[in-house]
Amino acid sequence: MVSAEILERLSTTLAERRLADPTSSYVAKLYHKGTDEILKKIGEEAVETIMAAKDGDKLHLVREVADLWFHTMVLLAHQGLSHEDVLAELARREGISGIDEKAARK
Amino acid sequence: MVSAEILERLSTTLAERRLADPTSSYVAKLYHKGTDEILKKIGEEAVETIMAAKDGDKLHLVREVADLWFHTMVLLAHQGLSHEDVLAELARREGISGIDEKAARK
Amino acid sequence: MVSAEILERLSTTLAERRLADPTSSYVAKLYHKGTDEILKKIGEEAVETIMAAKDGDKLHLVREVADLWFHTMVLLAHQGLSHEDVLAELARREGISGIDEKAARK
Amino acid sequence: MVSAEILERLSTTLAERRLADPTSSYVAKLYHKGTDEILKKIGEEAVETIMAAKDGDKLHLVREVADLWFHTMVLLAHQGLSHEDVLAELARREGISGIDEKAARK
Repeated sequence: MVSAEILERLSTTLAERRLADPTSSYVAKLYHKGTDEILKKIGEEAVETIMAAKDGDKLHLVREVADLWFHTMVLLAHQGLSHEDVLAELARREGISGIDEKAARK
Repeated sequence: MVSAEILERLSTTLAERRLADPTSSYVAKLYHKGTDEILKKIGEEAVETIMAAKDGDKLHLVREVADLWFHTMVLLAHQGLSHEDVLAELARREGISGIDEKAARK
Repeated sequence: MVSAEILERLSTTLAERRLADPTSSYVAKLYHKGTDEILKKIGEEAVETIMAAKDGDKLHLVREVADLWFHTMVLLAHQGLSHEDVLAELARREGISGIDEKAARK
Repeated sequence: MVSAEILERLSTTLAERRLADPTSSYVAKLYHKGTDEILKKIGEEAVETIMAAKDGDKLHLVREVADLWFHTMVLLAHQGLSHEDVLAELARREGISGIDEKAARK
């Protein structure tokens, strides 16, 4: 089993980068460009996920989903949130009514 | 700290639902509709994530990111993959060159 | 040659529907739901356009692009704008520097 | 009234560019990169349309919808289709049941 601790480490790094010099890394640069640029990346990675799935290319699909999760974590960190908020929301739904809570809500 | 074990439990449940009666749950129904319907949901949740961020509504944003992660996990399960493949990819990038590997790759 | 007058007629109809009873038509209902619902439709039709192109299904592709243009026209009408503003923008670019103006701008 | 002839002229230019040197223009370069790159642009412009609408910036919105229509026309030309196919589809719906045909179909 792959440890989910990578989410912890990634989250910590993303939070730290918020104070970094914009030229020091890809993420620091993206934070500096602002929310709209982060959102464009999320749109882009979602489209690439869809296209990789249509191509039936599993290796590519995993890479695109990783890009998508990564950029949603950048967005969360940029807003002072983290993957823990997302996991808590998923756990909350499980607690209430299982993974079909979303269907019930809609 | 919220435990990342929710991803494990969710992943197990999503894998089990693949054999379930299409009428038995939201996920079983979505599997039955097929890949295109799952991909439409991913597109939809990505757009809703973007809109929630534009609204500056953090509670809504967390819910939409949870919806987005959830539906990417449905897609992964539908293709015989799981969140572990995504975490392994994120860990691989960290191992090579930190979280900026993506930038290096592009 | 198919007449582009359909855009005129459609635009006139869409403007008229703004005052209609929300239950009287698909468009009147969509206006009533508001901007966010119209934007979700645009996101949805863009994803379906991408998927139809990936499938190589030309008939389906034309239908999805028609859906996409239609819903952008609904959005424009909802904001007091019309296809004429879009055509004027396209003509303006042609006037300045041909269809590559966008590249120059970026 | 702005003439819809801009769509005609643009469509003719886009068809001509299919045979052009990939380095000669933005569109020739995009054709050369292939369908996936054109589809990514459509996804990108759809997201930017949604974001401009959320910002309530009408001038920006018109520019993004123009970008979106432009890139769907690039896609159509790349597939041997044109805006005329889209206009014919919109006219067909009008002929059958007015602009609410889409709702009836779904």
